[in-house]
Formats: sequence, C-alpha cells, structure tokens
Amino acid sequence: MLNEYDCWFQKRQITVPVKLPDVIYSCASGEIAAQAARELQNGIKRLTGFSPVMHVNPDLNRNAFFIGVISCMENYFHLPADRLAAGGFLINVKEDRIYIAGQDEPGLLYGVFRFLSLLSLGQIKDGFETSDSPVSPLRMINHWDNFDGTVERGYAGGSLFFKDGVFDYDSGRVADYARLLASAGINRISINNVNVRAKAKLLITEEYLREAGKLAAIFRPFGIKLILSVNFSSPWSLGKLPTADPLDPSVALWWKERAALVYKYIPDLAGFIVKADSEGEPGPFQYNRTHADGANMLARALEPFGGEVIWRCFVYNCQQDWRDRSFDRACAAYNHFKPLDGAFDKNVILQIKFGPYDFQVREPVSPLFGSLLKTRHVMELQITQEYTGHQIDLCFLPQVWEDILNFNAGRQGRRIKDMVSPFSEGEANIEGFAAVVNTGKDNNWTGHTLAQANLYGYARMTWNPAFTAKEIADEWSVLSFGEGETARRISKLLLKSYPAYEKYNAPFGVCFMVTPGLHYGPNIEGYEYSRWGTYHRADNSAIGIDRTASGTGYTEQYSKENTAIFSDPKTCPENMILFFHRLRYDYVMRNGKTLLQNIYDTHFEGYEEAAAMLEEWKNLKEYLEKEVYESALSRFERQLENAREWRDQINTYFFRKTGIADEKSRKIYS
Amino acid sequence: MLNEYDCWFQKRQITVPVKLPDVIYSCASGEIAAQAARELQNGIKRLTGFSPVMHVNPDLNRNAFFIGVISCMENYFHLPADRLAAGGFLINVKEDRIYIAGQDEPGLLYGVFRFLSLLSLGQIKDGFETSDSPVSPLRMINHWDNFDGTVERGYAGGSLFFKDGVFDYDSGRVADYARLLASAGINRISINNVNVRAKAKLLITEEYLREAGKLAAIFRPFGIKLILSVNFSSPWSLGKLPTADPLDPSVALWWKERAALVYKYIPDLAGFIVKADSEGEPGPFQYNRTHADGANMLARALEPFGGEVIWRCFVYNCQQDWRDRSFDRACAAYNHFKPLDGAFDKNVILQIKFGPYDFQVREPVSPLFGSLLKTRHVMELQITQEYTGHQIDLCFLPQVWEDILNFNAGRQGRRIKDMVSPFSEGEANIEGFAAVVNTGKDNNWTGHTLAQANLYGYARMTWNPAFTAKEIADEWSVLSFGEGETARRISKLLLKSYPAYEKYNAPFGVCFMVTPGLHYGPNIEGYEYSRWGTYHRADNSAIGIDRTASGTGYTEQYSKENTAIFSDPKTCPENMILFFHRLRYDYVMRNGKTLLQNIYDTHFEGYEEAAAMLEEWKNLKEYLEKEVYESALSRFERQLENAREWRDQINTYFFRKTGIADEKSRKIYS
Repeated sequence: MLNEYDCWFQKRQITVPVKLPDVIYSCASGEIAAQAARELQNGIKRLTGFSPVMHVNPDLNRNAFFIGVISCMENYFHLPADRLAAGGFLINVKEDRIYIAGQDEPGLLYGVFRFLSLLSLGQIKDGFETSDSPVSPLRMINHWDNFDGTVERGYAGGSLFFKDGVFDYDSGRVADYARLLASAGINRISINNVNVRAKAKLLITEEYLREAGKLAAIFRPFGIKLILSVNFSSPWSLGKLPTADPLDPSVALWWKERAALVYKYIPDLAGFIVKADSEGEPGPFQYNRTHADGANMLARALEPFGGEVIWRCFVYNCQQDWRDRSFDRACAAYNHFKPLDGAFDKNVILQIKFGPYDFQVREPVSPLFGSLLKTRHVMELQITQEYTGHQIDLCFLPQVWEDILNFNAGRQGRRIKDMVSPFSEGEANIEGFAAVVNTGKDNNWTGHTLAQANLYGYARMTWNPAFTAKEIADEWSVLSFGEGETARRISKLLLKSYPAYEKYNAPFGVCFMVTPGLHYGPNIEGYEYSRWGTYHRADNSAIGIDRTASGTGYTEQYSKENTAIFSDPKTCPENMILFFHRLRYDYVMRNGKTLLQNIYDTHFEGYEEAAAMLEEWKNLKEYLEKEVYESALSRFERQLENAREWRDQINTYFFRKTGIADEKSRKIYS
Repeated sequence: MLNEYDCWFQKRQITVPVKLPDVIYSCASGEIAAQAARELQNGIKRLTGFSPVMHVNPDLNRNAFFIGVISCMENYFHLPADRLAAGGFLINVKEDRIYIAGQDEPGLLYGVFRFLSLLSLGQIKDGFETSDSPVSPLRMINHWDNFDGTVERGYAGGSLFFKDGVFDYDSGRVADYARLLASAGINRISINNVNVRAKAKLLITEEYLREAGKLAAIFRPFGIKLILSVNFSSPWSLGKLPTADPLDPSVALWWKERAALVYKYIPDLAGFIVKADSEGEPGPFQYNRTHADGANMLARALEPFGGEVIWRCFVYNCQQDWRDRSFDRACAAYNHFKPLDGAFDKNVILQIKFGPYDFQVREPVSPLFGSLLKTRHVMELQITQEYTGHQIDLCFLPQVWEDILNFNAGRQGRRIKDMVSPFSEGEANIEGFAAVVNTGKDNNWTGHTLAQANLYGYARMTWNPAFTAKEIADEWSVLSFGEGETARRISKLLLKSYPAYEKYNAPFGVCFMVTPGLHYGPNIEGYEYSRWGTYHRADNSAIGIDRTASGTGYTEQYSKENTAIFSDPKTCPENMILFFHRLRYDYVMRNGKTLLQNIYDTHFEGYEEAAAMLEEWKNLKEYLEKEVYESALSRFERQLENAREWRDQINTYFFRKTGIADEKSRKIYS
C-alpha cells in the first residue's frame, strides 16, 4: 500500500539477506555528511523497523556502517578514488560490514540514498559492490511559482514556497521535498517563476533575501543550491536608474552591488536564471544589445561570488503575423544563439529547450545541441505536464525523454546522451538539464500520484541519461508500491501512457492543436491565426509546414546527416513528419496507408488505449490504497473524456476538410 | 465642439425666433415636477446663457413658461387630456408664452426635456405645437455591474455604482446619468448583473438595501425606478433554508418577508429581474418546477407592494455536445416558454432576447414574439457592444434595431414595432424593451464617444419604435455637435458603420465566429466543438445549419407565412440565409454570384468601408475637440486592424476549405 505523500520513501518491513549493522560510523563532519548519516539511520528504520545508533569513534573490529568521503574512508578500506566524479560514491557490502564512500559530501549523501534504494529493491547482499557518479554536473529543477501562491503551469496545488506576496511555507515539508529531490540526484533549484512580475521583483531586496536565505538553509544539507529568477530590468524597475542597458556602467555597478547583497544572505547561491527578450519579458534587445552583452554583464556581477547566470534561449518573435511566411519560429533559438557561440563568459550557461517550439508532445531535438562548441549549456525539459495532460492524463515522460536522449545530433557522431558531460571548449557537451517541476501543495505532491514517476524519472535521467524509461518505470514502481505484481502492472501502465497520449494528440509532430492559453484539450485551429508562430496551415488537400531548404529552411540548421534525414519524407521519422513537411492527405506512409487514414487510425487507437488504461486501473483497485485509487481513477476517467474529444474533434476536422471517410467505417461525426 | 461628458446636453449659445420668457410658473408640486422645473431653468441657461426665475403664484397676464400636469394646466389653456398616454406631454408656443403639460409628472419631465431638445434642434418658433406619448410603457436598461466594480461585457470603464464589494459612487455623476436617461425616456434601471454571485447576493440584505435606497432616491426625481437582480437560490444561500423550491411554503414565506424588507427601503422599487436556469444560474428546474412556478412565487411576494418580476427567457442547455444533432439551441426559448403562455401571474414580465441566439450581429427575430398572447413580455436588445465591436469598432445599433422592429411577425399581420403596446389579453403586444447598457466610469460614459448615439438611440426607439435609424442619427448628431456640416457628416458616418461591421463579421447570419469568451475579433472554429450549441459545421463543400422542417425544425416555430419565407433559400432574407440553411459554397445567390464569392466580396468590402470610416474621421479633425478626435481616432485605427483580421481569417478559412480563389484575384492568404 502506498502512502502518497512519501513517494519513493515508503515505509516497509523488508527482509535482507545480510545482517545489517546496528552502528553507524561517519568519518566526515560537514553539514551534508551529517545529513547523510541521519538519512541512513532513518532510512534503515523506515525499511526494517530498527534504528542503528551513531558512534563517533570507529571500532574497526566491529560490524558497522562505515560512511564518509573517500579521503577519510581510506582508513577503512581501499578503493581507487579516481574512479569517481564529483558527486560520485561507492558502496561495498563485506561480511556484515557496509562501506559507503562519497567522492565528496554530496557523493556520500547520494551513496546513502542509493544504498537505501537498493535495499528496497532487494539488491543488497553479501559481497555487493557498486560505484556510480552523476554524468551531468547540473541537475536542475525550475519552479514557476508566483509570489501570490499560484504556480504557472502548475497542476498539483499552490506554491510550496509563496503565498499572498510573501514567503510562506511549511519548513518540515520543504525538508521532505529537499530529501525527495536529493535522493534522486537533483542539485539545483530555482524557486520562482522566470516571468518575474509584480512582487517577485522584490525577491532581490533585503527583506525578501533574508527569507530566501532561510529557505536556502533548508536545502543546503541536501546538497541543493538555490537559483533565483530575476527580472532583467531590475536596475530600472527596482533601482530607479534611468535604464537597464547592460553596457551602461551604472547598470553593471547596480548589479554588482545587488549581487553582493544577495550573497550576503545566500553565500552558496548557484546564481540567477533569466528569461530575457521573450514573450514580453525585458532584455538587452530593448537597448540594442545582444544576449551575450546582457548575460555577461550579469555574469560579471556574480563571478566574485562563484555564481552563474542561467540564460534561457526561449527567444522568438511572439508578435508574428500568421500571414507572414518569411519567418519560422522554429528557427529562432538557433538563429539567435548560434552566432553568439563563444561570446559568453565562462559563468554563463545557456538553457535550451529540447525542441524548437515549446515542450510539445513530439518535437525534433533543437539543432542548437551539437552546434554550440564554445558555450556552456544545458537542455531544458518539462516535468510539469503543460502540454501533456495537466497531471489529469497519465503521461510517463521518461519515454519521450529517452527518445530525445537517443537522438543522434550528428556532430562528432554522438547521441544526445553521449554528449552529456562537463564543459570542454571545442566539444558540444551538454552540462546537464533543467526542467519545470510538477510539484505543489497537493498531499501527493504531483496531483496525479503516478506523475511522481515523472519527477523521479527526470532526476534519474539527469543523473545518468543512459537509463531507459523501462528501467525507471520498474525501479520507481517497486520503490513506491513494493516488489510484486502490482508494481509490475503499474510499470507497464506507465509505459503504455505516452504512446496513447501521443496518438490522440496532434498528429505526427504537427504540434499546437491544443486549447490556447489553457493548453489542455483540443482546439485544432486555436493557434492558426494567432501571433505565436505555430501554424499547421491545414487546407482541403494538405497539412504541415515545409521546413526543408525549399521551405523555411529550418532543416538546414542541423548537421549534414540530419539535414538529409529530415529533408526527405521517406527518411524523416514519421512521428514528426508533419513538423518538417507539408504533405497531402493521400501521402502514403511507410505502413502503406495514407496520411489521412493514419490520422484516423491513431486517433481511434489512442482513445482505445486510454480506455484500456482506465480498465487496468480499475482492475488494480483491490491492491491500492483507497485514496490513491480514487484520486487517480477520477483522473483516468477525465483522461478518457479528453481522449474522446481529441479523437472526435481531430477526426471530424479532417473529415470535414477532405470529405474522405474512414476506411474501416468507424464513427466520425460530420 | 463637443464636451464628451455632457453627451446630448451640450452647452450652446443658440438664437431663438421667439422671445423666451424669463419666468417659470409650475402648477405641479411633486418631486418629479420640481425636477422638471429645475431642468427647464438649467436647460434654458445652458442653451441661451440666461436663467429664467421660478415664481410660485402664476400671473396669467405675464409672458411665462407655464408648466405642470394636465389636470392643473387646464386653468391656463385648453387641450383634450385624452390624447395623451401615461408619460405623454404637450408643448405649445403661443405669443411668447410657452406651455408644457404632462399627462402626469413624468410626462411633464419628458415634455421639458423634449422642449429643450427641440430648442437645440432649432424647431421652436411662435405657434409651435406638439404632443407625444411613449409607445412602450416599459423602457428599461440593465446594468451588468458586479459588486467588485467590474462590468460584465462593459467597455467603458468600471461600474458607476459599485466597487470592492460595496456601493461606491459619485452621487453628482449618478444624477447626471439619471438626467441623460430620463431625457431620452428611460424609466427603469436594474443596477446589478443578472449573474448574481459573491457579494451581490447580499444586495437584498438590510445593510445593502439601505444603500440601494439612497441610490433609488437619486433616480426618483427623474421618474426612473430601480430593479434589483436577485439570485433564485437566495432562500438557501442567504436564508439558510434547506431548499429554494418555489413550491415550498417556507421558501414562499421567506421571499414575502424579504420583499417587505426590500420595500421598506425602496418603496417604489419596480421589482426583481431574474436569470434562472441559465448558464449555471440556479432556478426552478433544480426542483423539477417550471419557470411559471418560479416566477409566480416571486411575483406573489412582490404583488402587495406593486412590484413586478422580470423573468429572462435566455434559457438553454449550455452543456450541449457538439456531436449531438438532436438538439438545436435556437429552438430553446420558444420550446421553454411558448407552452407556458398564460401560466404566469399578471405581475410577471418575460424578458425575451430579440433573437434565438445571443445578440449576434445578424439574427432572425425570436419566434416567441407574436406567439405569446396571454403573457406580458418585453424585448431585450443589447446596447453594450458585446458582439458588435466592444466600443472599439463603431457600430451604430439603431440600424439593426430598425430591421428588427420592421420584422413582420406574421401573427395578426403586424410588424414588431406595431406590436409595441401595453398588455392586452389575447394580443401579442410587446410592452417595451430592456437592454444591457454601454455606460461606465469613462469620462465620455461609453468608451467610444460616438457610442453615446447607441444609448440615445435605444432610449428614443423604446419611446417610439417608429423612429428610424436615420432620424435618430441626425437628431443625436445635432444635439451633440450642433447644427451644421459636422453633424451631417457624423450622422452619415454612423449610418455607414453597421453595414461595414456586418460585412467583415461572420457571413450571412451564420453567427458565432467570434473569439470565445472575449467576443471580439474572429475565431472561426472557436465555438465549433464547444458546449454552447452555436455551430456552423463548415466542411469542404457547405456551411450552415438546416433549420427547416427537414433539419432542426426551428423554422416551424414561426407563423405560417414566416415559416414559408424562411424555409426556402430563394425567399429567405440573404443576410441571414446561413442561419436557416446549409448551403454549398457554389450556391448562387440573388446577385448571381456564388455564396463563396459573396463571402469574399463582403469581407473585402467590409474592410474597405472600415478604412473609409477612418479616413472620414481624419477629415473631421479640425472640427472636433482634440480629446474626442484622438480617443475615437485610436479606436478607428484598431477597428481597421480588427476588420483586417476578420477579412483575412474568414477569406483564408474558406479558401483553405475550398481551394477556390477569389474571382477578382484579390489577395487571399493561403
């Protein structure tokens, strides 16, 4: 049975094939190491019912947990330290002695959490050995929390941090949150919305910084550093300077002084995140300066304190005229940032959305990945289900992230997951990940209880992008529901969810057939005449945008190999064929059926698969906590209603456009 | 030059071909008569610069204004009283003596206002005689003002009455407002939104009633009675009864007691207005009772105090499924209320929207008019420009009201305007009009200064539905801008506006191609898959709903003659042909061109006409007050942008559906 608040920290009575020691010796003394020791003590208690005691002076002849950082653990046993990266750890189970060594204190903490997971997963036995290190240095989550307590694109209750214009949180709950995040490897958290409006602009003033400092102190023992979202025009709006021009010395000075104030209260702040010149937010363009001018100026203010600037690349003309075909929004990020490669200071990190649009159900990977060789950058994913069902519809995101990570960027012959690595000048390395998180004040954190798997999966994949969706689904299901048939069935359910959602959504990567603003449910022409640049231009014979060299030229932003693959409908992946090509409805796809018939088929199938998921959930009733069963049941029911709307509106829309009936004579409303 | 706050009460220095007396004798003593005398005194001062004095004792040998009600005026001169209806008046100018006699005190007030208008219009001379009576007994405006100070569908600033949950108004401004309304003949005003939510439910509690009473006192000298919007479930939500069932004696008793309380504070309250069982508002359906059960119960509570219940007929299933063709929203009002004809108490007045939908740019007249022979009712129009351009686009509504009033309802062979008359059992009389007003806190009252003409025009047409749009445009223009070329040009501009707006809007009466929720600008499929029942079902060969006997049967709700006219596309008025018929794009219309080509033509023309209006306004610059010129100029510019979106989106939409180009090769975006 699942206690939904506890997520992957369920209470258990497990039996272990080794005798667990009743003493913990820790040779490290820092704040994080102390937390690691407490987590081990509490975790053993949670899983077995008994609590080992902590001893200060190690008795090497005694069976015990020996934990610490590598440097001091060498007193107890020998293992080559150079096998580990920062944040790495090793675990060794030898004749009732258990060694957990971290490369550093965070590594120790991760090692403890991993040991506890392995215990839960039934993998700890005599002779067990493992070591692991995070592949990504930067494993970030972004909160889009507003100071009024709402959460932009939040579907799990109000903000965990703010209410009514001030910091307002349950510190016990925030510590629980930090534990959840750290246990899966997260090491950075931005706490406020990148759209920094109203009172959020005051976050970098003394009154609010004092409170932010207290929040940082809760996350600190968990190895998680805070990031603050700041408004680029603060020198003007907050500082009352006549300008926020990044090249104006008074502006640079203002930010330097402000940085000093910020670091007075949060000495280990990771840095600032900035959404500039995007969707109405201010930025350097206002002063005819480049993104590099803007980011570097901020970076120089943070540099003395070791801070970094995370600069979002979600920049495009959001006042486009639908009549104007000279411009393609998909080209924007590359066009803006590729020419600036090498122009950014070394403490600037570009945060690039995984695709050229905006977290659609199926988009190609942005051509910026693989192109930037001299600029630090991370990939931005989205855990909160903005376009993927609002945590009403079940949609297990690691499935699509796996596809993204397996994309061969074609430069230096590497897949995205192979490119994840610390920065190295001249290589297209991706330093890590950021993602808008899916958590809020709901008791189960994520609205849909099964959406906890997306948070867990994101953290695990950022730790090591080689993890598969199936590995994550299996692991999460056992940690949450305990070993057994229920966990196996829930893992299968998770793995069925993304394909179903994709089928009943906008077809074949055409994107944006969703209700404007809300972003839930269909509105097939909702964006068709808007200013957002995301058109499908369906007419009575064809649909999609020609983004090849003969069209908008977007395909030319990729490596030669990928340009070739995407430019030819015969080689272009069909799940995103309408993103790259304008095709007639009678275009014959690889399965021998027309595009139109494939649209019909996928939409009938998507609905059927959603119906099957609901049935499977009902079949699980007796194995589940009533509260968990019922809250998810109502969501599966709403999902089916949503799938029905998608199916019928999409099918009717194309039937009305073409007059061509389904070849299997299924019901399409006229 | 226009002072926009003063509307049709501009200051002037006019010269008059008669010597205006310098004394006013009034033989009536009531509150309204006293107001009439003051209005005469101030009005003469406003128009001529000199102020006549009031004398108590009439000197019959002296040149003077003799004013009063007929009964006492008979002492001064002889005219048959039976020529006037309630609210009627006569004016007589004889050898420098001026007689203004009202059938009653409101009639006197209307006579004074009319005299002042005639003076402005240059029609007063020696020997002038006129008499006039209102054709409609009920000349109502509705405010959709919320207690928080917002105005539902308001485009002219915040509420004149409420703010932040309480009554909050400038009593001088409210008196000016009452003067404006009364001068054009309005005699009823409902002050709060028919969607009675949140604090507005408290309006019928002592604390708020005390304040409402003060407001009523401002309107009272102007012959205007207050109406309150009430929530049908008040006995439950306010009174804490277990039910609001209209047949429950405790509910009826609750309302009786509540009515006594209300009338304690507003002894001359006209009554309650109720939106029941509509768009989520509570009503008798909840208790399996009829509208008659609900309305009559309330009517019996108000009856002892002379109050009336105004019961809106805007009732339909607002949870329709777009797939379900068994139901047609257009049929709803008739289906709900025709069977109840005769079932309502004599102090119940049904308020019926002019058309079957919801104030669309072009709708047929509701078949309820002409059908109800035993039930008191009024017609509801809309002055606020919800679907007609938000007081950004110029749209002179008397133009379409004239069409509505000229509709031959076919029963008893009468046009709507011939049916406007006091109630008489067995006749299809319409007792008057109600309309959501277009006023707010903007200095010019109506956002677009020229939208003042809609308020004036509504009031004049409710006074006498025989007035033409041209008469009203001419009269309003002279009263506002003074006699001369400017007024003539502005009158022409007004008269061009509705045809232009209609052309660039949804074509040929198909309705609802407007942005959902907002109701400004195009969104051609915005309502196509919604729950609101207003579909056009355009496909690649045809558009519109067959509402004939072979379709939804809506046409069968009309008189035989009208059923025949509407059922045949050849006789159906073409400006609403797509409301009644589903037509192929190649259907040939009376001008010999296809439906599709007519859609293209009207949309190109509508844009051109909007462009011409902007040019005409620019040409008027030197004759206009800077403030008036510029605020309207920015609106004409936005209107042109709106017309462009309508033109291009509509044309592109149909071009994409059909692939057929404009025969004149004008630009249609693909």
